[in-house]
Amino acid sequence: MNGATTLVRTLLNSGITTCFANPGTSEMHFVAALDAHPDMRCILCLFEGGVTGAADGYYRMTGQIAASLLHLAPGFANGFANLHNARKARSAMLTIMGEHATYHRQHESPLKGDTVGVASAISHHVTLSPDAARVAADGAAAITAARSNGGQVATLILPADTAWNAADGAAVAAPPSVLERPTAQAIAEAAETLRQPGAVLMVDGPALRRPLADLASAIAATTGARLMCPYFVARIERGAGTVPFAPLRYPVDENVALLAGSKAMVLIGAGVPTAFFAYPGKPSLPAPEDCQILSLCTPEMDVAYTLQALAAGLGAATPLPVTPLALPPAPSGAITLEKLGQAIAHHMPEDAVVVEEAITSARPLIDATRHARTHDWLCLMGGAIGDGLPVATGAAVGAPHRKIITLQADGSGMYTLQSLWTMARERLDVIVIILANDGYRTLHREMANVGVDRVGANALRMFDVVEPRLDWVALARGHGVQGVAVQDMAQFNAAFAHALATPGPYLIAVPC
Amino acid sequence: MNGATTLVRTLLNSGITTCFANPGTSEMHFVAALDAHPDMRCILCLFEGGVTGAADGYYRMTGQIAASLLHLAPGFANGFANLHNARKARSAMLTIMGEHATYHRQHESPLKGDTVGVASAISHHVTLSPDAARVAADGAAAITAARSNGGQVATLILPADTAWNAADGAAVAAPPSVLERPTAQAIAEAAETLRQPGAVLMVDGPALRRPLADLASAIAATTGARLMCPYFVARIERGAGTVPFAPLRYPVDENVALLAGSKAMVLIGAGVPTAFFAYPGKPSLPAPEDCQILSLCTPEMDVAYTLQALAAGLGAATPLPVTPLALPPAPSGAITLEKLGQAIAHHMPEDAVVVEEAITSARPLIDATRHARTHDWLCLMGGAIGDGLPVATGAAVGAPHRKIITLQADGSGMYTLQSLWTMARERLDVIVIILANDGYRTLHREMANVGVDRVGANALRMFDVVEPRLDWVALARGHGVQGVAVQDMAQFNAAFAHALATPGPYLIAVPC
Repeated sequence: MNGATTLVRTLLNSGITTCFANPGTSEMHFVAALDAHPDMRCILCLFEGGVTGAADGYYRMTGQIAASLLHLAPGFANGFANLHNARKARSAMLTIMGEHATYHRQHESPLKGDTVGVASAISHHVTLSPDAARVAADGAAAITAARSNGGQVATLILPADTAWNAADGAAVAAPPSVLERPTAQAIAEAAETLRQPGAVLMVDGPALRRPLADLASAIAATTGARLMCPYFVARIERGAGTVPFAPLRYPVDENVALLAGSKAMVLIGAGVPTAFFAYPGKPSLPAPEDCQILSLCTPEMDVAYTLQALAAGLGAATPLPVTPLALPPAPSGAITLEKLGQAIAHHMPEDAVVVEEAITSARPLIDATRHARTHDWLCLMGGAIGDGLPVATGAAVGAPHRKIITLQADGSGMYTLQSLWTMARERLDVIVIILANDGYRTLHREMANVGVDRVGANALRMFDVVEPRLDWVALARGHGVQGVAVQDMAQFNAAFAHALATPGPYLIAVPC
Repeated sequence: MNGATTLVRTLLNSGITTCFANPGTSEMHFVAALDAHPDMRCILCLFEGGVTGAADGYYRMTGQIAASLLHLAPGFANGFANLHNARKARSAMLTIMGEHATYHRQHESPLKGDTVGVASAISHHVTLSPDAARVAADGAAAITAARSNGGQVATLILPADTAWNAADGAAVAAPPSVLERPTAQAIAEAAETLRQPGAVLMVDGPALRRPLADLASAIAATTGARLMCPYFVARIERGAGTVPFAPLRYPVDENVALLAGSKAMVLIGAGVPTAFFAYPGKPSLPAPEDCQILSLCTPEMDVAYTLQALAAGLGAATPLPVTPLALPPAPSGAITLEKLGQAIAHHMPEDAVVVEEAITSARPLIDATRHARTHDWLCLMGGAIGDGLPVATGAAVGAPHRKIITLQADGSGMYTLQSLWTMARERLDVIVIILANDGYRTLHREMANVGVDRVGANALRMFDVVEPRLDWVALARGHGVQGVAVQDMAQFNAAFAHALATPGPYLIAVPC
């Protein structure tokens, strides 16, 4: 048995059965070991951002790690942006990065690079395995690290000779360290705080889905606190029958207005509300300065225990009224984002999963689907555009019996369009709706936000993706995915209904 | 004047007039400053790997820096792989990375990331500018660093408030530090070494083009040393009338055979020959153990001075006979890589620029074009696949009156296919020849190289890009580039002749 085999068996022993991969030469023995273990499902992505984004999407839907296999420092760097997004989503991520053989690292070969440096810039845990005998234990420790503190990014660097040299046997990952819990005193203090007028209960992470969402809801109902959640969430249960969280918004000014008058805020699984960017003359933190912020349970702590203990202490049993079902009719006529949202709400089946990287097009789609059939909604978490198609890929692998609907802005979609090929290869049940506004509309808005009101030729040429326009149906076909461009709502309704009724990936390009 | 304006003026003052860009919100004031200075040419790329690869290609053709504008840590990471390639090409690179406002960096915003960490993992020089008053001087210092030691990677991190706050005025980059030169004694020793039987003169960098190539040639002719160069070179002058360098090869075994019997090797502008990867039982360094390696002039030192001094000391005036012109006829019939190389040699005009990321398809194309009309040949330098289309983009911007011919392997081309759009947008004169072998053929070979001889289902699914096959003509059309798939040599000849006669980008997909 060589080091690579001990690592594959350690993964399997530890419950990891899926590996998204874009391997290179330094990973060939690991690939051979995967090859010898068909109980590990290997899924090829044609770009590393597709690998890490898929592992993130898989985790969000299953709560289980899918391994990511990447090639040396530049290959890891190609996956960095979606590791960043996964880190912000608090997904447990295990990345195995191939590296030159230990004795070869001293030489100036073309692919020599700072594997530890680039990994350390994004990972909570980095280990460069020094020899084959250590690979299994190092792998097990990386898995444990990934599962700790509510989900972390762990990177195992695997020099080629540690994969090909002889090793003893596999390991199994130890359970993650026990999550930190707030003290009884902190919980009692939070209970009192939430009963004050103008209190906000801000929750995130596992609190956004049942059963924990019901506890949060009952706490809010009992105390009278306003139940809120962030604008960007890794996964939230929405639509009919779900808890009516009031989300923050993207614009700083709107959040300042939303939170005006808040006297106290208790955070459970959530960070302090923070503006996405700084803008001249606007605050970084939208809560009023006199709002008392109580971080009862950070995202790294035990969210389930905290909600249970707080609800028990309050005797909170009855949740808020749930979101009612209210389906709009399928709209006709010219395309608007509002009508697009209504059409999606009209058609979307029970238990759909929406992967949303709609950027400037998001708001009307979010609003229109609030009373749709029950669904999960997954956001771009770290602002590193290009996670929509990869996360949808991984979500579809992780939840094969649910329909995945990807709301994908065009500029962002271009970053990782190669994921379309993996959707075709694996016959994933993903509907990709491309919101084609021909550019980076967000930059038009942000230019004004930062106080620049004149936009000239150089700027326009960096904001607008015209001359030429992208042909998304051709791009999809190039990757083996069927698609259609629609021109009005009737065509959209027909295309969306067709896609919902047809297994496998399908792309709908929508001018908007 | 704000900090951003002082930086744009500093770039212009220092001779930087081109900026490849993929900006985000944190760079809006810099974009506004670019906007106000139309003498700066701004070129949008739809993915950051396209930005940095284009700046690399631009430098290789012009010897001048083009700035790269990237967005925060994940945007920088997306450009990392082609910064790695540029670093190995010793291209002078100035990357401006936007960052959150200084006072916003403390908060946990979605895009907060380790900008300094990820930059430090690939850059020779990293500065995070602390305030607007420092931006111009920090920018000038970064330019100087990029131009030093024969070409370096410099990164300037620009917090948004240092761009929008008031600043005093622009700066201008100081000249790079004087290059180190070998001593007279070292030069004399090298001259003596080269006169020994079995001596090799290994040169790289600027020595691969006239006029320095003629000096290297004369030194070899006078001493009898074998004149060699690496397999991967940033830019070499090839074809009729050029110096007949004997290149190293990719496979370790071939290099061991090529260098067998070498008693001494003098390096000028070149590193010690090193195997691309380590393989079980094969050496990392292919030169014989008893070969005396004399690093007379590292790539960071003064290659021009060294060649001049060495040639003068030897009285070397007459170079080796140059490569003769020998054009093959245009071949017909079924497509082979050998015939493809002949067809390219047959048609390729004087002064063409070949950007080659042909990977496993490269060798027959290299061999067949050795006696073609004079041309430049640019290789993937760092092994981080996905530099071909970006480098071609930048080369075309830098050398607008030369025909750019890109020999692009399909698996690698998929990494940065978004560069096709920039070729269309800027109407660049680039012919993209996609060598469509439906996968990562190199991995099939490398699996055998590392001693694995059985390839099963999991491995095959990670090596072969079939089910579905990529449709490169559709991918090109999606990006606004015309193209054709050819099925035999007659169709290739016709398509290539058409593309050579037609301005603007054109893609030819070749099964091989």
